Amino acid sequence: MVSSKFNGISNLSNPSIKDILSTLAERGRSLLDLDRYSGDPEKNLRLLCDDLLSMAGEASGVAMAQQVIVVYQSLGDEQKGKFFQWMQSEYGPDEDRLNAAIAAYEDNASDQTLNNINRESEPRRHELLRRLNLAPGGTAALVSMRADLLKHLKSHPQLSIVDNDFQHLFSSWFNRGFLVIKRIDWHTSAAVLEKITQYEAVHAIRDWRDLRGRIEPSDRRCYAFFHPALEDEPLIFVEIALTRETTRAIAPVLSESRDYIDARDATTAVFYSISNCQPGLKGISFGSFLIKQVLENLKGDLPDLKNFVTLSPVPGFMKWLNALPDQELGIDTQEKCEMFRSGLSNPDWCQDAEKVEDMEQIIRPLAARYFLYEKKKGKPLDPVARFHLGNGASLERINWLADMSENALKQSAGIMVNYRYIPKDIEKNHELYVTRDEVVAANRVGRVLKKR
Amino acid sequence: MVSSKFNGISNLSNPSIKDILSTLAERGRSLLDLDRYSGDPEKNLRLLCDDLLSMAGEASGVAMAQQVIVVYQSLGDEQKGKFFQWMQSEYGPDEDRLNAAIAAYEDNASDQTLNNINRESEPRRHELLRRLNLAPGGTAALVSMRADLLKHLKSHPQLSIVDNDFQHLFSSWFNRGFLVIKRIDWHTSAAVLEKITQYEAVHAIRDWRDLRGRIEPSDRRCYAFFHPALEDEPLIFVEIALTRETTRAIAPVLSESRDYIDARDATTAVFYSISNCQPGLKGISFGSFLIKQVLENLKGDLPDLKNFVTLSPVPGFMKWLNALPDQELGIDTQEKCEMFRSGLSNPDWCQDAEKVEDMEQIIRPLAARYFLYEKKKGKPLDPVARFHLGNGASLERINWLADMSENALKQSAGIMVNYRYIPKDIEKNHELYVTRDEVVAANRVGRVLKKR
Amino acid sequence: MVSSKFNGISNLSNPSIKDILSTLAERGRSLLDLDRYSGDPEKNLRLLCDDLLSMAGEASGVAMAQQVIVVYQSLGDEQKGKFFQWMQSEYGPDEDRLNAAIAAYEDNASDQTLNNINRESEPRRHELLRRLNLAPGGTAALVSMRADLLKHLKSHPQLSIVDNDFQHLFSSWFNRGFLVIKRIDWHTSAAVLEKITQYEAVHAIRDWRDLRGRIEPSDRRCYAFFHPALEDEPLIFVEIALTRETTRAIAPVLSESRDYIDARDATTAVFYSISNCQPGLKGISFGSFLIKQVLENLKGDLPDLKNFVTLSPVPGFMKWLNALPDQELGIDTQEKCEMFRSGLSNPDWCQDAEKVEDMEQIIRPLAARYFLYEKKKGKPLDPVARFHLGNGASLERINWLADMSENALKQSAGIMVNYRYIPKDIEKNHELYVTRDEVVAANRVGRVLKKR
Amino acid sequence: MVSSKFNGISNLSNPSIKDILSTLAERGRSLLDLDRYSGDPEKNLRLLCDDLLSMAGEASGVAMAQQVIVVYQSLGDEQKGKFFQWMQSEYGPDEDRLNAAIAAYEDNASDQTLNNINRESEPRRHELLRRLNLAPGGTAALVSMRADLLKHLKSHPQLSIVDNDFQHLFSSWFNRGFLVIKRIDWHTSAAVLEKITQYEAVHAIRDWRDLRGRIEPSDRRCYAFFHPALEDEPLIFVEIALTRETTRAIAPVLSESRDYIDARDATTAVFYSISNCQPGLKGISFGSFLIKQVLENLKGDLPDLKNFVTLSPVPGFMKWLNALPDQELGIDTQEKCEMFRSGLSNPDWCQDAEKVEDMEQIIRPLAARYFLYEKKKGKPLDPVARFHLGNGASLERINWLADMSENALKQSAGIMVNYRYIPKDIEKNHELYVTRDEVVAANRVGRVLKKR
Repeated sequence: MVSSKFNGISNLSNPSIKDILSTLAERGRSLLDLDRYSGDPEKNLRLLCDDLLSMAGEASGVAMAQQVIVVYQSLGDEQKGKFFQWMQSEYGPDEDRLNAAIAAYEDNASDQTLNNINRESEPRRHELLRRLNLAPGGTAALVSMRADLLKHLKSHPQLSIVDNDFQHLFSSWFNRGFLVIKRIDWHTSAAVLEKITQYEAVHAIRDWRDLRGRIEPSDRRCYAFFHPALEDEPLIFVEIALTRETTRAIAPVLSESRDYIDARDATTAVFYSISNCQPGLKGISFGSFLIKQVLENLKGDLPDLKNFVTLSPVPGFMKWLNALPDQELGIDTQEKCEMFRSGLSNPDWCQDAEKVEDMEQIIRPLAARYFLYEKKKGKPLDPVARFHLGNGASLERINWLADMSENALKQSAGIMVNYRYIPKDIEKNHELYVTRDEVVAANRVGRVLKKR
Repeated sequence: MVSSKFNGISNLSNPSIKDILSTLAERGRSLLDLDRYSGDPEKNLRLLCDDLLSMAGEASGVAMAQQVIVVYQSLGDEQKGKFFQWMQSEYGPDEDRLNAAIAAYEDNASDQTLNNINRESEPRRHELLRRLNLAPGGTAALVSMRADLLKHLKSHPQLSIVDNDFQHLFSSWFNRGFLVIKRIDWHTSAAVLEKITQYEAVHAIRDWRDLRGRIEPSDRRCYAFFHPALEDEPLIFVEIALTRETTRAIAPVLSESRDYIDARDATTAVFYSISNCQPGLKGISFGSFLIKQVLENLKGDLPDLKNFVTLSPVPGFMKWLNALPDQELGIDTQEKCEMFRSGLSNPDWCQDAEKVEDMEQIIRPLAARYFLYEKKKGKPLDPVARFHLGNGASLERINWLADMSENALKQSAGIMVNYRYIPKDIEKNHELYVTRDEVVAANRVGRVLKKR
Repeated sequence: MVSSKFNGISNLSNPSIKDILSTLAERGRSLLDLDRYSGDPEKNLRLLCDDLLSMAGEASGVAMAQQVIVVYQSLGDEQKGKFFQWMQSEYGPDEDRLNAAIAAYEDNASDQTLNNINRESEPRRHELLRRLNLAPGGTAALVSMRADLLKHLKSHPQLSIVDNDFQHLFSSWFNRGFLVIKRIDWHTSAAVLEKITQYEAVHAIRDWRDLRGRIEPSDRRCYAFFHPALEDEPLIFVEIALTRETTRAIAPVLSESRDYIDARDATTAVFYSISNCQPGLKGISFGSFLIKQVLENLKGDLPDLKNFVTLSPVPGFMKWLNALPDQELGIDTQEKCEMFRSGLSNPDWCQDAEKVEDMEQIIRPLAARYFLYEKKKGKPLDPVARFHLGNGASLERINWLADMSENALKQSAGIMVNYRYIPKDIEKNHELYVTRDEVVAANRVGRVLKKR
Repeated sequence: MVSSKFNGISNLSNPSIKDILSTLAERGRSLLDLDRYSGDPEKNLRLLCDDLLSMAGEASGVAMAQQVIVVYQSLGDEQKGKFFQWMQSEYGPDEDRLNAAIAAYEDNASDQTLNNINRESEPRRHELLRRLNLAPGGTAALVSMRADLLKHLKSHPQLSIVDNDFQHLFSSWFNRGFLVIKRIDWHTSAAVLEKITQYEAVHAIRDWRDLRGRIEPSDRRCYAFFHPALEDEPLIFVEIALTRETTRAIAPVLSESRDYIDARDATTAVFYSISNCQPGLKGISFGSFLIKQVLENLKGDLPDLKNFVTLSPVPGFMKWLNALPDQELGIDTQEKCEMFRSGLSNPDWCQDAEKVEDMEQIIRPLAARYFLYEKKKGKPLDPVARFHLGNGASLERINWLADMSENALKQSAGIMVNYRYIPKDIEKNHELYVTRDEVVAANRVGRVLKKR
């Protein structure tokens, strides 16, 4: 999800977590260079983890946790992989103790014996991860460690049990109650802005000038969630254009030569980009909370705002379309089907007014069908649709020729979608979506559908 | 642990958590007054908790968590007690699912089946508490909820299983990695200073003038831990006098007419008071981390500081002494034993120089014995001793006539103790204490002991 | 203007300016102990001032300015007086140069020759004061120096020329453009709150509990102006009660047992106290700007506020009344006149309902006359009236038995006044007041007047 | 002094002062659109200024000052020029009153009559400028107004009298005592960093990557002075490299591929760039104070720093050299002289090792002569030399081939100079420089000089 195309500073890698770690390393070395840990790094690491876990008191926990992190960071990719495997095989629950707890429970089911099963079945990794967090910068180090782990997951599926532990812990630590929302603007520090630039995953930020155009003008907003233990590290952010109407295409939003309006004259907030920042926090969901919080903040600041819509990509459309049998395209001859498919594969079609019109005739109804009827386990195929509809938004409009970037043509034949958030309907829509698999959509969306 | 003797503002109750809650209440009412929750508060609360737990998505989590807290806060003591009992009986693990998980594990022990046992044995209270934290101010509300729970624990010991869940969660959330140390001084906000005054548990702060004398002068320091989600709420704090020698009595430290010195001329930091602030965080230990962090900060700021000692109370001494058989007092006649005991029960003895001397002859050796040889499970009887020695401090000196307040005479016959923290020895002392039950003490401590 | 009756911390003198100076002193000593300045302090001071003024570059300005301040602060009262006299006699303009400039101007009046007169007629004190401000803490030191000067002014009227220079400088430095408004509440630092307590000049703050009651509740506000160079030192502050009606007496405002309302339900902001804080800034006016800024802030925060009134003392009324010839009291016999006057001198009259009524009959018309017709150079006699009417307020109401404190009875027979600020009328009222000497008053004010 | 070569955002003009003004404009319009000011802008402006100056009270000062600024900003260049001329001709002192004051003084010279001359000779512009500062953002507007004025000065030298008034006021307002030093680093806001990039006048900052390399690494520092009334607007800043030896050329300092060191290992601070930011503050000197303050800060942070040197350009060298008669070049034949001069005019010489050596033979002694003996009114010809030597630095070393940028070759034949600041010698050097016109220089500097 992390874009790396930023010209200005592209070669400089993300500093802050690394910086934290190198500072740690430095301090760590002076703290704990005991003879005990003079072996090779892998052995040391295991020894350190064992010691950290077996520590009776807290006396040396901070220093030891720091040292584990330092040594871990010094490892190469392969060594890290081995370390995760060792965590998997060695730091599960103690089965003897668990079996004893099960026996006691089967003998006498009580709060206490139940509780013992829970305690004894907890993998020792949980406690290890909690103790690693004693180190200064520990939270950042653990997030970075999980990002490493995720890379090994594909080739070593058994590590998913370790990932499970990280995820369990992070769900608790990155609870909404601990997140802080901050507005990102031209007064934000360069350190944070750099992250925003790197992490924008939807419409890449070309340079600082482009960035400035998105956060400084009165009719633009950007908000991010932060966690107090991860200073300067946004977790997720959303970019918003304040306009006088629902925007149907992305180019005018990002144009440098666009007209500016005074925020107080805006009626509509267009959420045109939302990006996760931390690969290590994959699966911990912030987006829904962020959108709702931003809605609240915007309503408070600008009471004249009436409409809250997104301008969203449709990442799954072309994949679905390409897999669709020709006879379902709504095209009468096989020849035309082939022309359509080959035409679509050449992005130049959108430069030719005639082709554009032909395409629209065919694609519009298919897009409506894609959103309204194509489901998997009852939910829409499209991941972005699932996200917004699951949050309680409704499907407002499918926009033709809305994003003509190469990537968008390839993903979605250039269509984009407005989802609408109506504060008073959010709960109801969400309920319908969750319990009855209903997609709430404006009438116009289905109107293009041929009778089925 | 919370003193309430502060003159200036004693009638005003602690505002901040209450304030948060009343604001919540107000906002909550407008959010979720659905017909569904129109029953009596107790029923509503259970219904709300059920709904909160069964929520598929996150759409209404924040509002619902808020509502649970609001309704909970509106309950009376007895109703709260019933609510906790209901949590105990209804929100444990689902035993059917657990039994199935156990069966599957016994059939085939694997990471996955192990993990399922852990998941299915987790009481549903865990998830409930995590979801309650979605509400703004949720963390404060949960800490306050546990303080309520602790009050019911004595009369309802079965609630300890619920307390267990709170404690498990708080151990993770109030991990050292999330705590922030702040210096408390005359630039600190009145809101925080008021808490410091209320929570001082060792040497009560009489008024703002007394408070100022402890935090403003150059030769005084005060540090506290804060958690980012509990603004204005110190978790624990320590008060320090910077001096040119190890202080042997408390009165000169607190005297308003004492001489001031420049902090840069100090050689010794005397930790003379450490107080926990949050009853709802009982059992979550911060003290050891705080002392070590403060040591680091002081060494960084004032490189000339060489000695780090405490001036600590001895809360268990008189209790032990009162239970000691007469023949172990080291007094030759029964009559004298009685005189000694009756003399001790009248605090006036310390006004009479002759009596003082007699007392000292008898008590000093007993105090040395109390610290050096009286143990329970291998550790010292005295809780303050266990705390500091367990942190890696050594026993430096037992001070005669060190605190002549009524309370101190009753608890400890007026003795106080200096524990010494020597940065380079902390690990070693801690190790000796934990693994070999050794108390590291200065020679002089044992010298007064009669041969045994 | 500075009250010193605060119980809690009354013996501790105002620290911050002194602290700044003592820190300065310490650093200063190490900087500039040249042999040149080894004489007695008075001589040194003059020598240092001469050197500071004759400095060609800026190289040693900071250190030298610091040293001047340090030595100045070490002087006793009498020596300070002599120093001011020396400033007066020695640091005026250079008359030879001025005479030459005048001659050149008379020879040829031009921008340049005019400018030279201005430059050569500037007392060298101006430059001296500007250079003293180079020192860290210099602004605070100069404000404190002027406070000293004002004490010598009465016995040495010739020093008014020196005071003139301070005032000229401070008018420029404490320009509205440099002032920062801050809300004072329970999150404000103890250091600032202590100042607020000390400086409250209208209704003394008894203790921290009283203070808290004025700044923490939702229906109370307090705002102060600060200058960036005087950290922690409010310049002026105003206390406000948010109510549902215009308050006619002070006791209910300050009562500890009053009912609280939600700020958002308030319709009226009552400015019940405004106090200057810095004796050294006497004559530099901030009040008018503060009131207007606070009006703006309140309107922004609480759009439902409609009325902005003061509840103000009448410091000049009794003085005027005591000087009024008997025949103008509106009392028919000489005997009754005497009874009235002697009754008034005994504050007990306000405990006796009958006397209260008699008094009201007599005093109300006199109070109306005092405000509406008694003038000096066309402006009202009462200084508080001059302040608010000059700011563009109107006279709303004279309140009988509004403040029964001893002081108020003595100053104003217990009456207080509401002045009203109507934002859209402020300019017009101000204009009428300034250009036509008109006092804008509500009809009811004059109604009690007997026909004249 | 303001570079405009920044790629990233070059087309966007400096926002903050403009932004302030446009916000002002907006608010201003709603405040004061009285019929009185309905004429053309120039007339309005004069009327407004007259009204602002004649205002008796402060009631409408803020709004009126705001309006003056708004109208002023709406004027074109030519109109602004006329406005300044009008200020010059109309807002001088009142000559009748001045003449009366002079007559009174000549009749009776006293503190009072002297003071009256000073008051009456003060141009009314002073008071106008002070009152303009009442407006929010007034200080920024006045600084911007003076920048406009400076542009008209050349063609209208009579405006220097107006400039004089600005300068007098700014000297007082931007006194060292009001300036705040801040470290600029990667946590600084983009708004400030953008200014740093725009204002770097010595070694242009190419892009954000270049900027980052100068402020983020541990071995780089940047400090700026700010004024509290000009938020986000640095006044002057200095860039520093921390190294292990005195750097003799600029390229290695700015290289992206240089080696980094840990700041704590550095022995030497190289001040390699110092830039003024505000054209409107021309002539108000901050540089000397900044360098000394930074010296203090660095010594405090990094006690191992021993050497404080600059790496400075020599902007006047080639101009002097070009004007030097051939016979003084130290070259034996006319032909060689011509070769030398023509060689020098082609920047390629420095690519040819042989030429470089020849050049060095000739230029080194001339450079030494330029610094040691070429004076104007007793002070060095070179403006950068005057600045640093006047601050108390000494001339440490002239570096051959130190800056091979086109501009540097043209200005200084590529030489750069190290000036050294030795804290304990600063006063003495400054004294020698000011009073005896002595340039303190290391011996090696003069060694290359042929005997004279």
